[in-house]
Amino acid sequence: MKSATDLVIFGGLGDLSIRKLLPALYRANVSNQLAQTTKIFLSSRGVSSEQAHLDIVERALQEHLGSGEHEQTHWDSFKQRLVFVCIDPGELDDRWDQLKAGLDSTGNASRVYYFAIPPSIYGQTCANLAAKELVTANTRVVLEKPIGYDYESANEINAQVAAYFQEEQIYRIDHYLGKETVQNLMALRFGNVVFESLWDNKTIDHVEVSIAETVGLEGRTGFYDKAGALRDMVQNHLLQMLCLLTMEPPTKLDADNIRAEKLKVLKALRPIDEFNIKANTIRGQYVAGVINGKAVPSYQEELDEVSKGSTTETFVAIKAFIDNWRWAGVPFYLRTGKRLAERFAEIVIHYKAVSHRVFDESAGPLEPNRLVIRLQPEESMQLTLMSKELNRYGIYMRPATLNLNFAEAFKSSTSDAYQRLLMDVMEGNQALFAHRDEVDQAWAWIDPIIAAWESEQVTSQEYPSGSWGPDSAEPWFQTGNR
Amino acid sequence: MKSATDLVIFGGLGDLSIRKLLPALYRANVSNQLAQTTKIFLSSRGVSSEQAHLDIVERALQEHLGSGEHEQTHWDSFKQRLVFVCIDPGELDDRWDQLKAGLDSTGNASRVYYFAIPPSIYGQTCANLAAKELVTANTRVVLEKPIGYDYESANEINAQVAAYFQEEQIYRIDHYLGKETVQNLMALRFGNVVFESLWDNKTIDHVEVSIAETVGLEGRTGFYDKAGALRDMVQNHLLQMLCLLTMEPPTKLDADNIRAEKLKVLKALRPIDEFNIKANTIRGQYVAGVINGKAVPSYQEELDEVSKGSTTETFVAIKAFIDNWRWAGVPFYLRTGKRLAERFAEIVIHYKAVSHRVFDESAGPLEPNRLVIRLQPEESMQLTLMSKELNRYGIYMRPATLNLNFAEAFKSSTSDAYQRLLMDVMEGNQALFAHRDEVDQAWAWIDPIIAAWESEQVTSQEYPSGSWGPDSAEPWFQTGNR
Repeated sequence: MKSATDLVIFGGLGDLSIRKLLPALYRANVSNQLAQTTKIFLSSRGVSSEQAHLDIVERALQEHLGSGEHEQTHWDSFKQRLVFVCIDPGELDDRWDQLKAGLDSTGNASRVYYFAIPPSIYGQTCANLAAKELVTANTRVVLEKPIGYDYESANEINAQVAAYFQEEQIYRIDHYLGKETVQNLMALRFGNVVFESLWDNKTIDHVEVSIAETVGLEGRTGFYDKAGALRDMVQNHLLQMLCLLTMEPPTKLDADNIRAEKLKVLKALRPIDEFNIKANTIRGQYVAGVINGKAVPSYQEELDEVSKGSTTETFVAIKAFIDNWRWAGVPFYLRTGKRLAERFAEIVIHYKAVSHRVFDESAGPLEPNRLVIRLQPEESMQLTLMSKELNRYGIYMRPATLNLNFAEAFKSSTSDAYQRLLMDVMEGNQALFAHRDEVDQAWAWIDPIIAAWESEQVTSQEYPSGSWGPDSAEPWFQTGNR
Repeated sequence: MKSATDLVIFGGLGDLSIRKLLPALYRANVSNQLAQTTKIFLSSRGVSSEQAHLDIVERALQEHLGSGEHEQTHWDSFKQRLVFVCIDPGELDDRWDQLKAGLDSTGNASRVYYFAIPPSIYGQTCANLAAKELVTANTRVVLEKPIGYDYESANEINAQVAAYFQEEQIYRIDHYLGKETVQNLMALRFGNVVFESLWDNKTIDHVEVSIAETVGLEGRTGFYDKAGALRDMVQNHLLQMLCLLTMEPPTKLDADNIRAEKLKVLKALRPIDEFNIKANTIRGQYVAGVINGKAVPSYQEELDEVSKGSTTETFVAIKAFIDNWRWAGVPFYLRTGKRLAERFAEIVIHYKAVSHRVFDESAGPLEPNRLVIRLQPEESMQLTLMSKELNRYGIYMRPATLNLNFAEAFKSSTSDAYQRLLMDVMEGNQALFAHRDEVDQAWAWIDPIIAAWESEQVTSQEYPSGSWGPDSAEPWFQTGNR
């Protein structure tokens, strides 16, 4: 079931392509997931020889693949698929003809344009593709985040793309949704009565969703300081994970049904505004500290001169509620931050305690059940139960952990997630990509938070690099401070 | 918390004592579970030298302990505890004085009388104990099955014992309840919201409870042919397991509360009588066949001359219903038989299927969840889930099995179960022993089945030794024929 699809990456030699997309495509090729005729067009603005470009790609693969993955035979096979084109996607000129001729020559019916370029030129790139008659009914386009800065700007970018592509052709990618364990979460939830029957406010007490980073600005100064953690991470990754986690069972696990259910979650999010902003959000900004034994500077020190004194948050924690029948009253603690103690992405379902203790004191303490879904750095899914200590006279209860991924926890890279999602694009499966309505709705929830921060003067609290964020966030998260 | 308790075993050199009780006590001694002053009085009718009796016990241990368990130092320690007395428990004579003197000399405040003797002399033995002033407030008595043959005879035996002992002093032993996994089942059920919340007719479809034996009559011809499988196994072991499995959560896991809840289950059992006997019971009797490659004779061939032509069942399967709020409509399939294909005791909880399939056909078949509690020959507890096959593009569902015992499945012997239950007796914990009311109530459910078999002429269907019983039972049991 491999689709005869060509792939064009704009920004084909840029950072995302080098680090994630090319390793993902290389692996897809090794795994025989690409149709025999599929070509990969790497578009870049720089003019150089084909050999020079090939060298760049080969070096990139050598650097970003795992040890032993780069083999001569695989590389020989992969490079047959590569076509280098030199285009400035924001400019309409006859350099596009080269791409057109190339695509026509493959004979493949469908094509995918991957926009690994700034969102500011998404619109013009679409217009240029259309002008050169490169948009067919069988064309898809992949959009990288950030799609906009707020509801209005996101809407504008989406409208620009929508002028040339139908919504069914547009793939807004979020690599967290490409994780193996995210898919297994859906498999477990909808494949087992023992999970889905307990997936509600009667049995679940609260939920944590965290993406913790140890890195700081990494040179993204200008962009990041204008965005902050809320726009950069919550609006997309955290909300998307929250939606998949909490949506009603869709009629079918297909794009239309899944996206309709996710949208309902976003619409059910209780608004956070000037009246409840202080009780439900915490902002932080890192100061100097130590991570993994290494001293690191403060956010302020990392900023460029014009931004000094910025109050942008590098940490945000939100106590969110989903006001619907299933989730009424269950707090969802969302958290993300830079320069935290540890790099991880994790969902923790905290079940309620048993309603009544039948054991006497000698049985020891009873911990509520927990389902821990770990996405990063390794993928794992674990259920924690209380069990009798075996071969001990009488009942003494001990926590024990069940592995629900049915494989050892495995290291997975962002590139693995991109591989899975790229295959979805090639196969035309939008299930794990956000619909425009979701993007709009997410911003419609985010914008009032930002407005309330301003109107209520909610500032970022300092936290030392290498900590778990501001102290005030601690009571919300039991999985920090481990 | 070791109680200074003496133990007197009537039938102390009999089969049960030799094969189960002595190995259990030996192990308890090795594990330091016995108080330092505890003496074990082995009463037997035969007169012989102490050394001859010691030799019998040592040979018994050598034969029935596991390899390596019999060590000289352990034996030296154990034999210090042994006192041999020569009594015919059904006769009142001055041989009892020897026991009285022995018990008085230990200085232990409490004592346990274990009746490993025929139930027909339980009453006289009690009377003799009382006559010799051997029954104190701190005295307990352990009764082995069979307690009676029907409601009336059981009531008579219980009344005889009750004339001399309070119900709080009486321990009716059922070694199946001493299994480690039976206790872990309670621990899991009441220690985890993810189990107890789904322990009802909304989520559980049906349940199988099986005790399958490969042995035939083993020389118990006279007794067994009068009893049959229903009286020999269902009235006690199967119903007791069913009760523990299905009882409401008790207020506390203590004897009074557990036994009150078990009794409620027995009272809620839907009566089986002449109107529904044929739909809800299957009787079988084995004919010749092959087990483990060995030809074995038919039941009829094993019977003694006077019993030839007997229609006694060596196999019985019952479709039982518990007519209460929690279990209404859930069939409980009880099964036991001799000369079946495999020896095992097992409870299988079959959960309902997920209410709606969200996966498309390519995800493969979805099996309902199953919880398998295995008591014999090894102990294990497993939950079967459907999970995504990892590292495969798209969602393909596969059954996977979780080990809930948190240890490898382990071989356990009846003696291990006796050890646990004997310690309960020594500690005065009646939680896993049947109350007189339970015995009465179990017979009150069993008697009408026997009556209906007679009035409706339900005969035993032939089944070949080495099979899973009569063909007609097959649809009820998915765990046979594996």
